[in-house]
Amino acid sequence: MTAYQQLEGRFRRLSNLEETANFLHWDTATMMPEGGAESRAEQLATLRVLCHEILSDPALDDLLDGAERAGGLGAWQRANLREMRRLRAHATAVDGRLVEELSRATSACEMVWREARPKSDFAAVRPALEKVLGLVRRVAESKAAALGCSLYDALLDQYEPGGRSAEIDRLFDDLARFMPGFLERVLERQAGLPAPLEPHGPFPITRQRDLAERMMKVIGFEFHHGRLDVSLHPFCGGTPDDVRITTRYSDSDFTKGLMGVLHETGHALYDRGLPVEWRGQPVGRDRGMSVHESQSLLIEMQACRSRAFLEFAAPLMREAFGGDGPAWEPDNLYRLYTRVTRSMIRVDADEVSYPAHVILRYRLERAMIQGDLKVADLPGAWHDGMKKLLGVVPPDDRRGCLQDIHWYDGAWGYFPTYTLGAMTAAQLFDAARRADPDIVPGMRRGDFGPLRNWLRAQVHSRASLLGTAELVTAATGRPLDPQIYKRHLEARYLAPAEAPRASTAAVGAA
Amino acid sequence: MTAYQQLEGRFRRLSNLEETANFLHWDTATMMPEGGAESRAEQLATLRVLCHEILSDPALDDLLDGAERAGGLGAWQRANLREMRRLRAHATAVDGRLVEELSRATSACEMVWREARPKSDFAAVRPALEKVLGLVRRVAESKAAALGCSLYDALLDQYEPGGRSAEIDRLFDDLARFMPGFLERVLERQAGLPAPLEPHGPFPITRQRDLAERMMKVIGFEFHHGRLDVSLHPFCGGTPDDVRITTRYSDSDFTKGLMGVLHETGHALYDRGLPVEWRGQPVGRDRGMSVHESQSLLIEMQACRSRAFLEFAAPLMREAFGGDGPAWEPDNLYRLYTRVTRSMIRVDADEVSYPAHVILRYRLERAMIQGDLKVADLPGAWHDGMKKLLGVVPPDDRRGCLQDIHWYDGAWGYFPTYTLGAMTAAQLFDAARRADPDIVPGMRRGDFGPLRNWLRAQVHSRASLLGTAELVTAATGRPLDPQIYKRHLEARYLAPAEAPRASTAAVGAA
Repeated sequence: MTAYQQLEGRFRRLSNLEETANFLHWDTATMMPEGGAESRAEQLATLRVLCHEILSDPALDDLLDGAERAGGLGAWQRANLREMRRLRAHATAVDGRLVEELSRATSACEMVWREARPKSDFAAVRPALEKVLGLVRRVAESKAAALGCSLYDALLDQYEPGGRSAEIDRLFDDLARFMPGFLERVLERQAGLPAPLEPHGPFPITRQRDLAERMMKVIGFEFHHGRLDVSLHPFCGGTPDDVRITTRYSDSDFTKGLMGVLHETGHALYDRGLPVEWRGQPVGRDRGMSVHESQSLLIEMQACRSRAFLEFAAPLMREAFGGDGPAWEPDNLYRLYTRVTRSMIRVDADEVSYPAHVILRYRLERAMIQGDLKVADLPGAWHDGMKKLLGVVPPDDRRGCLQDIHWYDGAWGYFPTYTLGAMTAAQLFDAARRADPDIVPGMRRGDFGPLRNWLRAQVHSRASLLGTAELVTAATGRPLDPQIYKRHLEARYLAPAEAPRASTAAVGAA
Repeated sequence: MTAYQQLEGRFRRLSNLEETANFLHWDTATMMPEGGAESRAEQLATLRVLCHEILSDPALDDLLDGAERAGGLGAWQRANLREMRRLRAHATAVDGRLVEELSRATSACEMVWREARPKSDFAAVRPALEKVLGLVRRVAESKAAALGCSLYDALLDQYEPGGRSAEIDRLFDDLARFMPGFLERVLERQAGLPAPLEPHGPFPITRQRDLAERMMKVIGFEFHHGRLDVSLHPFCGGTPDDVRITTRYSDSDFTKGLMGVLHETGHALYDRGLPVEWRGQPVGRDRGMSVHESQSLLIEMQACRSRAFLEFAAPLMREAFGGDGPAWEPDNLYRLYTRVTRSMIRVDADEVSYPAHVILRYRLERAMIQGDLKVADLPGAWHDGMKKLLGVVPPDDRRGCLQDIHWYDGAWGYFPTYTLGAMTAAQLFDAARRADPDIVPGMRRGDFGPLRNWLRAQVHSRASLLGTAELVTAATGRPLDPQIYKRHLEARYLAPAEAPRASTAAVGAA
């Protein structure tokens, strides 16, 4: 066996262990009785240790060097070596004891946070959060030294390979200048129109589930390669050949559950579309969190909240619940699903105010990692940031800096991928419908084939062959451009209202 | 760390990987969409290889020797070393290529068998079965050399640690002499009584499930440490802290599904009752297939098909389906659930004819392993054996030697554990109700606490501390004794009919 073949074997084993861990995580969230938690943690810890042993084996360096020296590899195999080195760099950069210490500190901090959040008691969780931040900064220092980048970028790189804050600043500063005024204009415009009507229930869970499955099939989810289940927090797990998505249903509102399903279906299409011939190899993985989020947001925000798709979907929704009246008209549903408010809560935020939430968190977490902002000053900085970016100030920390689990759970450097994903989604969708004029008419008749084909060719099938920036350029013809995202928002939120039966030419308002 | 502590660490890792594999198996049978099969096989193969690497690591011998030389170990730790050596002996006895060859041959044979069985075409599967048998005999040769026993016993030892055919012959020859005449007498007696009535449905699946869960709780299944799901073949999987049992339901008959649940609940109580302080160690595992089957049959056959339990259960069954009339009377249900026929199919066989099925298979498989019976002569030998043991001859191989998956799937040496389990169940239950006179009255009022306490103390908590024979003697005061099993059968099937409300003294007929 050549050095390269040996490497493929080792990383195939790694992939099988990671896939196994994915199923245990899915099972934990959907099926496991609570009494199984302790032994489940042991099973997962064993898998984690084994994965770490594979990546930190000193023999790997010789094999990587040997494979490169031997040459004769194709482009995807060379990309595979690059990705192998990346995984190894992250795995070996940090001392095992520090990883364990951080893991314990985040578990402890998360528990305190769960108590502190409903009581809006930031002081209670402050010491635990300070400890987490201290350890995260030590991790960042180790990784920064190994990767040759700043502390924050070293953390960001875990979720967004090759992502750098200089580039994020360029994009987010542009958005931050645009957003407050834009939000103002959208709110003004929507205030001048009649409020959209809320469909009234009942919305029995079994019917919500049937509707969700029907929509998933329309979008292209293959049920012989996946499942839909229920969990507290919706997610997309499993493996490319067996994609497990989840949602949660509310008796009184079917939209959240359904939109959650559509969002996760976007993630699922990406995983499912990763190339079969690279299965189990690092190059065959998804390209990181911003691209993954772009796929969910493209399906949910760009496609399924569009006027075109709602023409198709509204009758199915009405039929699913035996609904009647103007609330079920596509035009009303479109206005309902694009209604904008100054929400203080990120997960409830609409498409327009969401980026402001993300920009705030990105700036705050970077300042904390750089040592420019103390944990003690976080509530005040949050207050100021919200005022500036969203023009609204949370009355307490529960609706402020206590609302998200990320920092308390150790996920620093993750937040920017949400808005990078939203911008990427807009740019990909823009390129897609230029490339294939049948994409939007297809959505209008419930045919996602054209969109799926484009995504598979331009995004899914490329897996990790290219870096994120190269992937976006290859798929859309240019680097990530905030203008396209802003144009999408303006077209959707400020364009004159469409006639109920829009012609296919009016894709700008999709 | 001492050598012994290092061993505990290595076997804890082994246990976590095996538990993980258990969940993947459960998921495969209950949740997985068919498109996930291929990658699931890869995941399981990786776990299998890792487990084999742990057990075949040459360093293990030094650690085992070192731990024994160092001494200072308690009784359970010494038993743990013994069990570690046992697992290692089985893992290292056979060459990896032979294991793989057998695995491929059984997969191929099983596929042919699935086609051949419905067509009753033994000739079609004969070559594949001959190949499997040839490889199984080579495995048996390797293991026999390593364990110092006969070919058959080497296979038996995989399922029944320490089991030896000389002992099985002693027990089964006794039963084989007893059974034909006994069966005759039971059939005669039941022919002289009015036929029991079948409750009529409908039996909606959701109600069957509710009833099953209610019964599981009565018996002592803890739903915060386990689940009930549906699979094609009922089984008990998962781990001691998260026991996953399955059943399958039929619209037209609730009894099979329910009895399947009760059977698996017996398995589940055993797994759940394994001692917490030995978790993850070989000594903390169940004691093998005959003891495991004794626990399921004790709950299903000894307890739940007893007159006493049916007094409690009949009203719940009737209530579950809104039933009415004499078919739902405890006395009728008892006669229905103890009805005996000369079934040609093992899995449909009643308590009385089941042992004959097992004895036949045991004798045939041993003869084939020893080289005394050719695969080509199997249908004829089956025919003769059925005639002699059950007095009935299957008209085709579908209802003959093609009915069970075991041989085609490579599970040789497994069959005797069914009837060893039934005999052990009878002996344990006999000892239990002598030890605690409240056990049978408890069942009558739906209180399994007394029975559970006895089982936990005498069987579950001992895990693999003792050998099977020592465990039976410790729990019941004597070695496995066919007289006790026969007495149980005679009491249940030949004793005079009980009055509808039997006194608690009439436990002999339980």
